[in-house]
Amino acid sequence: MNRREFSQRLCGIALSAVFAKMAVAQQQTHDTRGKQHSRPEKPEEIGMLIYPGMTALDLIGPQQVFGYLGNVRVELVAKTKDPVRSDTGITIQPSKTFTDCADPLDILFIGGGSDGTVALMTDSETLDFLSRLGKTAKLVTSVCTGSMVLGAAGLLRGYRATSHWSVRDILPQLGAELVVNRVVQDRNRITAGGITAGIDFGLRVAAELRGEDYARFLTLALEYDPQPPYGSGTPEKATPAVKKISHSAFDPLHTAFRDAALEARKKWVS
Amino acid sequence: MNRREFSQRLCGIALSAVFAKMAVAQQQTHDTRGKQHSRPEKPEEIGMLIYPGMTALDLIGPQQVFGYLGNVRVELVAKTKDPVRSDTGITIQPSKTFTDCADPLDILFIGGGSDGTVALMTDSETLDFLSRLGKTAKLVTSVCTGSMVLGAAGLLRGYRATSHWSVRDILPQLGAELVVNRVVQDRNRITAGGITAGIDFGLRVAAELRGEDYARFLTLALEYDPQPPYGSGTPEKATPAVKKISHSAFDPLHTAFRDAALEARKKWVS
Repeated sequence: MNRREFSQRLCGIALSAVFAKMAVAQQQTHDTRGKQHSRPEKPEEIGMLIYPGMTALDLIGPQQVFGYLGNVRVELVAKTKDPVRSDTGITIQPSKTFTDCADPLDILFIGGGSDGTVALMTDSETLDFLSRLGKTAKLVTSVCTGSMVLGAAGLLRGYRATSHWSVRDILPQLGAELVVNRVVQDRNRITAGGITAGIDFGLRVAAELRGEDYARFLTLALEYDPQPPYGSGTPEKATPAVKKISHSAFDPLHTAFRDAALEARKKWVS
Repeated sequence: MNRREFSQRLCGIALSAVFAKMAVAQQQTHDTRGKQHSRPEKPEEIGMLIYPGMTALDLIGPQQVFGYLGNVRVELVAKTKDPVRSDTGITIQPSKTFTDCADPLDILFIGGGSDGTVALMTDSETLDFLSRLGKTAKLVTSVCTGSMVLGAAGLLRGYRATSHWSVRDILPQLGAELVVNRVVQDRNRITAGGITAGIDFGLRVAAELRGEDYARFLTLALEYDPQPPYGSGTPEKATPAVKKISHSAFDPLHTAFRDAALEARKKWVS
């Protein structure tokens, strides 16, 4: 086998390409709820906001799922084309900016973080972008503390929503009704809990767009058979020792998010 | 509060920084097995190989956990400093190359993918790098089809190991003993199953380095309380409809990985 034949053969097994064909086939069938999924005429546009200090796993969990949907355009949108550094030092290249991002989007998404996310909650350029795209997007979505920023942009007023457990009680300050669930959908708003909830969220969206059979297939492709080795990650199930550690980490963060929420609200009134 | 005060306050709540302090405190305590975790004199060096076509979630699951360990240096290592594009179009910047990567490493890691991963299995520059660093690293680790590349480099000969379910039966061709488990440790080799298994893997390594209490705390920080919305992602539990879809996607990939494994073996003999 020469190099060219080898390359052609490898192209034939690139999962994203294989999945693209399969997703289209799935779109032409019925899902288990009997809802028709017809092939859209043009690729769905997904815009995922990225910013300094974001938690990379909030983004990549759903991005991995979206990337396997086939017939979608998944863009990473930032203020500028400068590379963006995550909270654990992953440097990611944006593919679109606030000015050249598709409008309307099929899905508008923002993931969470800590200091970087708090900073966005009073950043008028970001809030204006979210507010503008949020008006026309078919789905307005978030993972983790990303819902704090959606809320700051006024996009969760009157909606049921969730967030990372450490800050979710702040949602009512942003006009939302808190629902404690891993993924919460209210009309076209879908918000998810902390960090790893992004995978559950991504699969929910996959089912919405391609039917439940395709979401089940992606669950298998991702080998999503989680076995948390050290118990479950909810405050309700945490041991006293873990609760004690987590207070010292998350209490200052809660204060910062709450203050930013109060600041963001002021803009709505004025 | 002026801009400087605001920035200082935000720095104080950056989770990676907060976690760094806490991790050090945890290292000075005993874990539940009574094993002493004393603070290492210098940061642990973690080298995570990145390459075109990699599955980003294989990398980011464990990287998010490693980034929260405190007192570690997590580097993304590639052949050159050119940005690397994942199988779903995420462009990530390497921080080290094969030539300036720390040696010895505390942890050598490689995640999986499809066509890009198959290509690495016969890429002598990559195999030489893995083989060299694998000799001295304290832990030699992988997620998903990353173990195919470790195997091609001869690093799994005589070790129990696992991989993505779709290719794991190839491991014996690479001299390893297949164990069907989400995370498999044999001496200093730790291999994990497909894509999402990287989170379970990361937490296992966290416990190894910082004790089980800290791993439990990270489980909470990541809100790792998974609720797969469409059943479980193992071939054993998949429905006939899903199995049928998955054969058409994964059978050609299996052939390509098997052929690459047979090719890689030839080098060991010569």
